[in-house]
Amino acid sequence: MALKLVIGDKNYSSWSLRAALALELVGEPYEEIAVRLYQANSRARLLSHSPTGKVPVLVTEAGPVWDTLAIVEYLAERFPETHLWPRGEYPRALARSICAEMHSGFTALRSHLPMDLARDQALDEIPGEVQADIERVCAIWSDCRERFGEDGRYLFGHVSIADAFYAPVAARLRSYQVSLPEPAATYVDTIYGWPAFQRWRQAALHEVRG
Amino acid sequence: MALKLVIGDKNYSSWSLRAALALELVGEPYEEIAVRLYQANSRARLLSHSPTGKVPVLVTEAGPVWDTLAIVEYLAERFPETHLWPRGEYPRALARSICAEMHSGFTALRSHLPMDLARDQALDEIPGEVQADIERVCAIWSDCRERFGEDGRYLFGHVSIADAFYAPVAARLRSYQVSLPEPAATYVDTIYGWPAFQRWRQAALHEVRG
Repeated sequence: MALKLVIGDKNYSSWSLRAALALELVGEPYEEIAVRLYQANSRARLLSHSPTGKVPVLVTEAGPVWDTLAIVEYLAERFPETHLWPRGEYPRALARSICAEMHSGFTALRSHLPMDLARDQALDEIPGEVQADIERVCAIWSDCRERFGEDGRYLFGHVSIADAFYAPVAARLRSYQVSLPEPAATYVDTIYGWPAFQRWRQAALHEVRG
Repeated sequence: MALKLVIGDKNYSSWSLRAALALELVGEPYEEIAVRLYQANSRARLLSHSPTGKVPVLVTEAGPVWDTLAIVEYLAERFPETHLWPRGEYPRALARSICAEMHSGFTALRSHLPMDLARDQALDEIPGEVQADIERVCAIWSDCRERFGEDGRYLFGHVSIADAFYAPVAARLRSYQVSLPEPAATYVDTIYGWPAFQRWRQAALHEVRG
């Protein structure tokens, strides 16, 4: 049985995008099950795949694995040869730190600038707490690329789960036209040049524009 | 150099408790650095340990590891012989799923029933969304113990990170005097019988009552 990934709307579901990018890094074929969110039957459909009623869910031979962090750890453990986390104990710990920070934090950025890949319009005003989140994101990107990124343009040199986790943030910063210092601006370009991200974004635009 | 764990107030900081319980499972000596939260200098003190200014932080020889999920993964990887995660690919994936679900969710439970180990008083009323969170917690505990807990009273039989993650929830349910069905009520007893939890709680009571 191939793995199945249950996702929400590609334009809006940032956590679905993160899990899908990690699964694309694995390189194994998988089945995508798309559930339109915010419909009358969305929750019932999602509950048929996992007990949380949320996306994403990875359906494995043994049962469902849910919540993006658990999904990526499962993939990293099942496919060790793909090195989804950076090599080296401390770079890996740091990658996990910034992914967990994303997972539980950045609430202002996430609520004021929800992911909308089709958008290309600035906010009238960026609230102070959103600005603080943006500055923290830029500091993370700058720090990682300075310390670990010398061999490439991704956060830890080679593409990893950390990039999958920050790709939806890069997308928000571009689609809300946020001015960025270097190296954050270049990192956003890197994400927009990532083929798996490009395919997802094209599908999202197609979904929204029909 | 021994590992150092930077924590907040023991009575209130549920994430500090989770990391400390995981570290206690490792069994290695470590240094505890307690920072009183909500003081004028709290953030400055925390920023001297990690770039997020939050607790908990694990200070390692190589640098800080922050956010509880990243800390527990670091410990599980560094001390594989302690089996902090359950053995077996799918039980481990399920343990990670429920920990990540805790990490990003249960916002109603967490905001209406903040951890307060010294408390012993019911809420006047339990809001509907809190009740839904409580029911989901009870379903998780019931499901895990039914499927994996046959050898013991913990969620996956032997004590694991999953119990460290749900211990502060057990503490909330008891300190807010929430009536629970079986096996949830027994699981709360299990947590209150866990020596490492008991030591932390005693220290918390001492902190609060002086």
